[in-house]
Amino acid sequence: MYEVVKGYDFTDLLRKNLVYLLVVGNTKTAEIPGITVAGANPELIKYTPPADAELLYYGRCLSIKGIPATPDGKPTPALISYAALKLTKIPFFVISSGLIVKPKIPFIDLQAPVGENIAEKRAMDEKDVEEVVERAKILGENFSKVCDALIVGESIPAGTTTAAAVLKSFGLDPAVSSSMPENPIELKKIVIEKALKRVRKSEPLEILSAVGDPVLAAVCGIALGSKKPVILAGGTQMVAASRLISSMGRAEIAIATTVYVARDKNANLKLASCPVIAADPMLGKSKYLGLRAYEEGFVKEGVGAGGLTLLCYARGFEVLNEVEKSYEEIVIKPISYRAHGDLSQR
Amino acid sequence: MYEVVKGYDFTDLLRKNLVYLLVVGNTKTAEIPGITVAGANPELIKYTPPADAELLYYGRCLSIKGIPATPDGKPTPALISYAALKLTKIPFFVISSGLIVKPKIPFIDLQAPVGENIAEKRAMDEKDVEEVVERAKILGENFSKVCDALIVGESIPAGTTTAAAVLKSFGLDPAVSSSMPENPIELKKIVIEKALKRVRKSEPLEILSAVGDPVLAAVCGIALGSKKPVILAGGTQMVAASRLISSMGRAEIAIATTVYVARDKNANLKLASCPVIAADPMLGKSKYLGLRAYEEGFVKEGVGAGGLTLLCYARGFEVLNEVEKSYEEIVIKPISYRAHGDLSQR
Repeated sequence: MYEVVKGYDFTDLLRKNLVYLLVVGNTKTAEIPGITVAGANPELIKYTPPADAELLYYGRCLSIKGIPATPDGKPTPALISYAALKLTKIPFFVISSGLIVKPKIPFIDLQAPVGENIAEKRAMDEKDVEEVVERAKILGENFSKVCDALIVGESIPAGTTTAAAVLKSFGLDPAVSSSMPENPIELKKIVIEKALKRVRKSEPLEILSAVGDPVLAAVCGIALGSKKPVILAGGTQMVAASRLISSMGRAEIAIATTVYVARDKNANLKLASCPVIAADPMLGKSKYLGLRAYEEGFVKEGVGAGGLTLLCYARGFEVLNEVEKSYEEIVIKPISYRAHGDLSQR
Repeated sequence: MYEVVKGYDFTDLLRKNLVYLLVVGNTKTAEIPGITVAGANPELIKYTPPADAELLYYGRCLSIKGIPATPDGKPTPALISYAALKLTKIPFFVISSGLIVKPKIPFIDLQAPVGENIAEKRAMDEKDVEEVVERAKILGENFSKVCDALIVGESIPAGTTTAAAVLKSFGLDPAVSSSMPENPIELKKIVIEKALKRVRKSEPLEILSAVGDPVLAAVCGIALGSKKPVILAGGTQMVAASRLISSMGRAEIAIATTVYVARDKNANLKLASCPVIAADPMLGKSKYLGLRAYEEGFVKEGVGAGGLTLLCYARGFEVLNEVEKSYEEIVIKPISYRAHGDLSQR
């Protein structure tokens, strides 16, 4: 079901009153051809974060047809998160930190800039970073008053690249992870090397502005503002967030991700500054090829999928069955409807 | 301290776990010269809602110099709300439903249209109203999972005019209330009569689109989505909201406002479809002229001031003293600083 990758078992926390916050945003780093597959084509990549957020509330996307997927059709991890939220019914809110396209749902706006392409220029103005962190602190503080712990997830295409650049800026030696098994390592290394030249000092706000992204800035602010523990639901990105948070102030944090990330030798979980647990959504046992792809190293994590899987296990829910039901309802039925034109299925 | 104006005493509810939601927005009805004093001059009126929201989080406004005030300097009721939130420390969130100017704080965006001037045209497209109500329902449902009751306040200049038009559309016979003691009754009556001609049927969504405003639409959605009781903190606007809500579905609602509204024979509290309590912030006993103006019928209510005053009393806090402290800190000190240029006071 799950394994403690680093530190101690914090699953007790997940049986308390929780609020889930999904932070969504964009970095233009995703526009570098080949760097991410978080979208069926380059034009669609920018819609992935808002579409993921819409999926969680409505069980379908409003800003795109179908759901976010890789160019060869592997579905977004938002399917796992959707299933987990359906099972556990915990309250959740979407936070925009640097979105290009607004989701068609209620969302909290941090008025963050879209992150720049870190291969070409600094990610964000320092003043913007400070403002985003400050606003996110207000949110973290207020949300922490209504629960015992927060779970914070993310959706930002190319976020593993900015995260690796952040880790490297701290003098760490991250491997470079990806939502693809044939990780475009050489490309990412070139981007990161270019980005690192702009880091003037190994200080968290400077690192965020030079090579980070707006989602990382928001996650840091939320954790620092919270008066309760914060579970960072994600892989490499949350490892980078943990380092930033620990260098910015005091916060009780832990990381929950998927075993698909943990099994990837490039995933850097050991570099986290906090405990790490990896949960297994068991998608390898699915009857659906699209879901089994996760077991083979595709997609792996995102939209808080690992943390929300762990939440289900901590509360005694099975995940795989519900994910398959969601897959049928959200992916298969609409396709078969389109194929057969059967209006009775509406 | 407070009086039950209609129905029963629901103050017990205020001792439970609460979340405060402030809904802010604009209607172009406020552009009609003389219809509102919720702003020092016509240009500033549109900044009043975002500035009120900023004041609650930061104890100062970021979008304008000073704080929202009437043309002759009577301060925004956000001062009362700020003091009450400081005393009670309840979590709160700001919801934008049709703002012209975004506040420089984290806020939830319903992506509502700015309300049109109801003297000239229909307030909102019916489809927009439906979307706003739907999104607000999602929020109401999710926030109601983290508390025992919600308090919902509002800030929208000229909101009493749209509210009176809504009540009249239901076949009720509202008096016309205002933030001014010399209520521009004739002007408002003309606006309302013009607006009413556009109401095609006495049905809540139609009334909202024809003569309502985006803040009313959001308040309705929140109440209808909530699984817990909702305390509508406001005067005539919340009376209109109560009628809309009751005609749209089932929701456990109550109104909490100020005695300044209750004493105004034009305030229509008896037309509410739910219990009403009026709380007395005791500003008549203040040493400051600007605060005593409330007792004389100026401003009266807004930004949830009455409901949050009642919250303080239910929890055993004094309000007047804290409001005076806030007035000193937010209004008097900056003026004296500007007058003396004394840097040591920074």
